[in-house]
Amino acid sequence: MSGNETTLIVFSDDLDKALASFVIANGAAATGKKVTMFFTFWGLSVIKRREKVRTSKDFMGRMFSWMLPRNSQKLSLSKMNFAGLGPGMMRGRMKAKRIDPLETMIQTALQAGVRMTACQMSMDIMGVVKEELIDGVELGGVATYLEAASSAAVNLFI
Amino acid sequence: MSGNETTLIVFSDDLDKALASFVIANGAAATGKKVTMFFTFWGLSVIKRREKVRTSKDFMGRMFSWMLPRNSQKLSLSKMNFAGLGPGMMRGRMKAKRIDPLETMIQTALQAGVRMTACQMSMDIMGVVKEELIDGVELGGVATYLEAASSAAVNLFI
Amino acid sequence: MSGNETTLIVFSDDLDKALASFVIANGAAATGKKVTMFFTFWGLSVIKRREKVRTSKDFMGRMFSWMLPRNSQKLSLSKMNFAGLGPGMMRGRMKAKRIDPLETMIQTALQAGVRMTACQMSMDIMGVVKEELIDGVELGGVATYLEAASSAAVNLFI
Repeated sequence: MSGNETTLIVFSDDLDKALASFVIANGAAATGKKVTMFFTFWGLSVIKRREKVRTSKDFMGRMFSWMLPRNSQKLSLSKMNFAGLGPGMMRGRMKAKRIDPLETMIQTALQAGVRMTACQMSMDIMGVVKEELIDGVELGGVATYLEAASSAAVNLFI
Repeated sequence: MSGNETTLIVFSDDLDKALASFVIANGAAATGKKVTMFFTFWGLSVIKRREKVRTSKDFMGRMFSWMLPRNSQKLSLSKMNFAGLGPGMMRGRMKAKRIDPLETMIQTALQAGVRMTACQMSMDIMGVVKEELIDGVELGGVATYLEAASSAAVNLFI
Repeated sequence: MSGNETTLIVFSDDLDKALASFVIANGAAATGKKVTMFFTFWGLSVIKRREKVRTSKDFMGRMFSWMLPRNSQKLSLSKMNFAGLGPGMMRGRMKAKRIDPLETMIQTALQAGVRMTACQMSMDIMGVVKEELIDGVELGGVATYLEAASSAAVNLFI
């Protein structure tokens, strides 16, 4: 039945939207639903690995690398970012309320079998290579997404 | 049948997105559909009550209170906000075109039986308490949302 | 079957989100799905025609015209806009990677039979008239959208 699947397009690299994505993904996975997350455009930064990876990029690829958040630890808030103070405040507040940090949520999702797909076209445009992404992420295109979404009950663009 | 339900996650506190949310919610309710709105993160500000409520908050809770819009009357536009002039312009324009203001749309939704749920986790993070929210709002978590969404035909993240 | 339809609300006038919308729309259309795009609020700018159209607008209508992007060629990025440099960079990069520009994607969508609907209420608010929109766009309201969405498998708000 269609009620058993959920897909999320993670388009944004805002910390708050990344958190919302993983709260929904992990909530759905916890009740036994099949979940597919499709990371596209700015959303690719959410699943970049923390360790620096040696890559050979062209000029524009290096430009994008330099300008985009290096990994999930470097994401900004969509509001109240306060030149970088906001995310720390949000993270501190979550810790105080005993809510998992984003990085733990990502690991929980992977362990729960949430399927994470990185958009190949966005990777080409932004010069992101597979080695920069965390383990367990597969590559795919809009067809991959649409196939999963067509049989899912809940499809969100975040 | 699934065609009879609609859910909206209101994540944003932008006036324009709040308006879009309530136009869709009220449109769906008008055709007899069951509608659930789930207010999370910044979206909580959309359903704060207008009257000042005496609460005892911790330091961070007071910080959030002070920085976030106090209620739906104080929301900004996602574009063309012009340091606060934009929302008034948008509201004036809507009035001239005889479109209900946001506050009327919210009351219409409540009267039409639209179910409004505030995200408990977001309230904890931002230090928002139930007394600050308008009457008729219930509290819930991601499980509440997912249950409604799984049986709905239209699910949007706004 | 519901699996055969897709609807997209294009609320944003960000170049990146417009691109995502058309990649999804054209991907779905290519696999034989019926696709409806509903352009509302800022999203109206995505389907404005390139040629200047002589219109008689009231003062506020002229204000909106003057402040909003004149057509798809003038859209900004939601991030890294760099006072207007970002979109050119993104477009150059897409060209280098042999990805169709937005304007070609729009034409492809129209030729593939993607149904494009402009939100009448948003047009009223922003003073946009039908003559300013590209050929092939029809006008509609929230009821038009909800009817299409209720029978669709994939509904996104972008």
